Amino acid sequence: MNFEYLNSLLSERKYSALVKELYEMNAVDAADFLAIVSDEDLPKVFRMLKKGIAADIFAELESDTQEKIIHAFSDQEFSKILDQLYIDDVMDMLDELPANVVDRIIKNADKQTRAEINRFLKYEEDSAGSVMTSEFVRIRASMTVSEAVSCIRRVGAHKETVYVIYVTDNARVLKGIVELRDLLFAKEDELIENIMDKSVISALTTDHQEEVAQKIAKYDLLALPVVDSEDRLVGIVTVDDALDVIEEEATEDIEKMSAMLPSDKPYLKTGVFETWRQRILWLLLLMVSATFTSAIITSYEGRLSTSGALGIVLTAFIPMLMGTGGNAGGQSSSTIIRSLSLGEVRMGNIFRVLWKELRVSMLCGVTLAVASFVKTLVLDFRCDFSPENISVSIVVSITLFSTVIMAKLVGSSLPILAKRIGLDPAVMASPFITTIVDAISLLIYFAIASAILL
Amino acid sequence: MNFEYLNSLLSERKYSALVKELYEMNAVDAADFLAIVSDEDLPKVFRMLKKGIAADIFAELESDTQEKIIHAFSDQEFSKILDQLYIDDVMDMLDELPANVVDRIIKNADKQTRAEINRFLKYEEDSAGSVMTSEFVRIRASMTVSEAVSCIRRVGAHKETVYVIYVTDNARVLKGIVELRDLLFAKEDELIENIMDKSVISALTTDHQEEVAQKIAKYDLLALPVVDSEDRLVGIVTVDDALDVIEEEATEDIEKMSAMLPSDKPYLKTGVFETWRQRILWLLLLMVSATFTSAIITSYEGRLSTSGALGIVLTAFIPMLMGTGGNAGGQSSSTIIRSLSLGEVRMGNIFRVLWKELRVSMLCGVTLAVASFVKTLVLDFRCDFSPENISVSIVVSITLFSTVIMAKLVGSSLPILAKRIGLDPAVMASPFITTIVDAISLLIYFAIASAILL
Repeated sequence: MNFEYLNSLLSERKYSALVKELYEMNAVDAADFLAIVSDEDLPKVFRMLKKGIAADIFAELESDTQEKIIHAFSDQEFSKILDQLYIDDVMDMLDELPANVVDRIIKNADKQTRAEINRFLKYEEDSAGSVMTSEFVRIRASMTVSEAVSCIRRVGAHKETVYVIYVTDNARVLKGIVELRDLLFAKEDELIENIMDKSVISALTTDHQEEVAQKIAKYDLLALPVVDSEDRLVGIVTVDDALDVIEEEATEDIEKMSAMLPSDKPYLKTGVFETWRQRILWLLLLMVSATFTSAIITSYEGRLSTSGALGIVLTAFIPMLMGTGGNAGGQSSSTIIRSLSLGEVRMGNIFRVLWKELRVSMLCGVTLAVASFVKTLVLDFRCDFSPENISVSIVVSITLFSTVIMAKLVGSSLPILAKRIGLDPAVMASPFITTIVDAISLLIYFAIASAILL
Repeated sequence: MNFEYLNSLLSERKYSALVKELYEMNAVDAADFLAIVSDEDLPKVFRMLKKGIAADIFAELESDTQEKIIHAFSDQEFSKILDQLYIDDVMDMLDELPANVVDRIIKNADKQTRAEINRFLKYEEDSAGSVMTSEFVRIRASMTVSEAVSCIRRVGAHKETVYVIYVTDNARVLKGIVELRDLLFAKEDELIENIMDKSVISALTTDHQEEVAQKIAKYDLLALPVVDSEDRLVGIVTVDDALDVIEEEATEDIEKMSAMLPSDKPYLKTGVFETWRQRILWLLLLMVSATFTSAIITSYEGRLSTSGALGIVLTAFIPMLMGTGGNAGGQSSSTIIRSLSLGEVRMGNIFRVLWKELRVSMLCGVTLAVASFVKTLVLDFRCDFSPENISVSIVVSITLFSTVIMAKLVGSSLPILAKRIGLDPAVMASPFITTIVDAISLLIYFAIASAILL
């Protein structure tokens, strides 16, 4: 979006013209604009917005801009906006604001909202309960279609969706769902009972948000009902929230795959210290564990240094062997981690996975070994086909072949085993696999080199 | 899902009971079941399904199962199913089937579907045009709410969505959108003109599917209208397709980040040769480019081998230095690649990104250098604080510090530069960065070591 015109209105203090422009815009774009307005102008502009629109835009703001508004507003001013927000937007906001601001918000909420907030605060982070909303339309199975439509007209205006309607009994137990679309095409006096879909797909409040999002994606749903342990309907997760969850979870997987702790803030909004904290732990851990590789090289120190130039020639191939092993293992581990995330591979598939990886790794190993043999003689030894050079090339190729097979088997099995023992498979990603593969491939290399050359 | 009961019905040849069960199930689950039915039973069961339900289930099948059914069916039988499919499902299917099957499908489609298929075939792969559907409801701005509702009732039954209605003029130019929800709460004689939203967010047929999906996610839309270069409405992309695109694109990014060519098939459905082809190219390329690192080590061969044990001690730290450099660079590159994908970082942010990475890398560099100094003396040299050991530890720490800074700057700038020159940033990922970082870090190491030790 180009905000030049809006900025010019702001600098000329044409506030009412500016507010009119904001009304015309999508709330997401208006929020993008408010994010770049000065701290001084922000509350001024925001105060001029109508209550309903102010709430819509507020829900789309990043937490740092939300915080500025909360600080500038009186308790009374803020509670007016708060009462207009959907409960899932309130919960999103509470998740990211500092504790003292959260306290202020809870204090200022009306009784009903406060009760809702407290109920939602009990759900674990990243659970279905924590991402659901309680603003949905409930009807009875005994209603006719026209009764259901009037019910939706009466209560639906402030619900997050009116396109999926939930049929519950006296005990709030979920009995079926009906789409607004079905009501539109049904006869007016038809009973809901007869047109509702009874094979309802639902989630438990304790399910992980990723499972919920995957279900919505798999069944192409607009919303997924969330029930408690007694099958009572307590909320719904809408598809737009599922989209956010899927993006968030993919980012988290990528972060873990790249040896970082996950962060839920956008990159440019994260402070330098926070980014450092997110990255340093794994760097330290992997650096220290590289002690093994150093120890292996040092333990062959005697033999390598007595072989003089040959020792150095052999060490010259270590980075290539480790690099290729790491890349080969990383390919397998990230494929399996992603497949586990998408539910394409399960624990029960481990032998099928290993068998496939074994065949793929043998193909890759042979290709790389042949290519490496040619490359070593032609590029590294500049076409000097002395017996010693040929022997070194053979040793390197055999090592490469074994390393690639080992790397792919380690890379594909560790994520599955991690999942089995309840760990996050994404932790068994490239950097971790590389460290293991590095040590093993060095052992293989020196064992083969010792046997043939040293 | 547990298919035991369905399997027992199948083995007892209780076909009509089985079909009744399938009618009760969600089409996605029914498709999951058909995927494991024997090649012999599959056409038998499928023939017994009602036309509409058969099409629903067919759309959810994987392409290999679809192919089996197409082969078993006569042209006439198949064209009945084909005519019931949404155009976007037909296009998805055509994308993945072999050319001879595609020809047969086009031959058997009715005239209108064939025209549609040919029109859609012109859109580039992964463009908005290729993922959109042409089954949407169009109304005129001059209609009243009740006229609009009857129009939806009349034409809406076979449209992919009736929840978002598009307002177009005589030339099919998109003028506004209105949600079914708004119609439900509006007065019956209100003109559409007065309630439609005119600030429409739309995409061009040529836009990339990822952009389209990001727009749907950003604005929380149920469907995004797609227009041609003359602003005429030609299709819509629904949120369920956006979900698939976002999953697909995240998988593709992860594959590229792990040095693989992207694949659009699930892991267990991909053949061994195909997986090999997906992986071998980058492995070969990175192996050959590792020639540089070998060459650098070999060029220091003279100095390293005359320093005997010290030479070997120095080489023992190479894997750790390279590994840490690679991990540090990989963290930065994958963070930036993901932020570019999500639109959080743009080309214009490059100096902000570099400035942030410089500060983060200095923090990481200092932490790692100090930790490495202690680790080297305590773990590698087993608390032997000889002057030579202290010098080696200092050299390693200084190298580590410089390597981490260099790695993070290279890792964060290359993806942005790649995007600038029109390449996919994801190609500039960890394995590629590692190869560059490996070579540079070796040069730094030997330069520092030569100056201080050799």
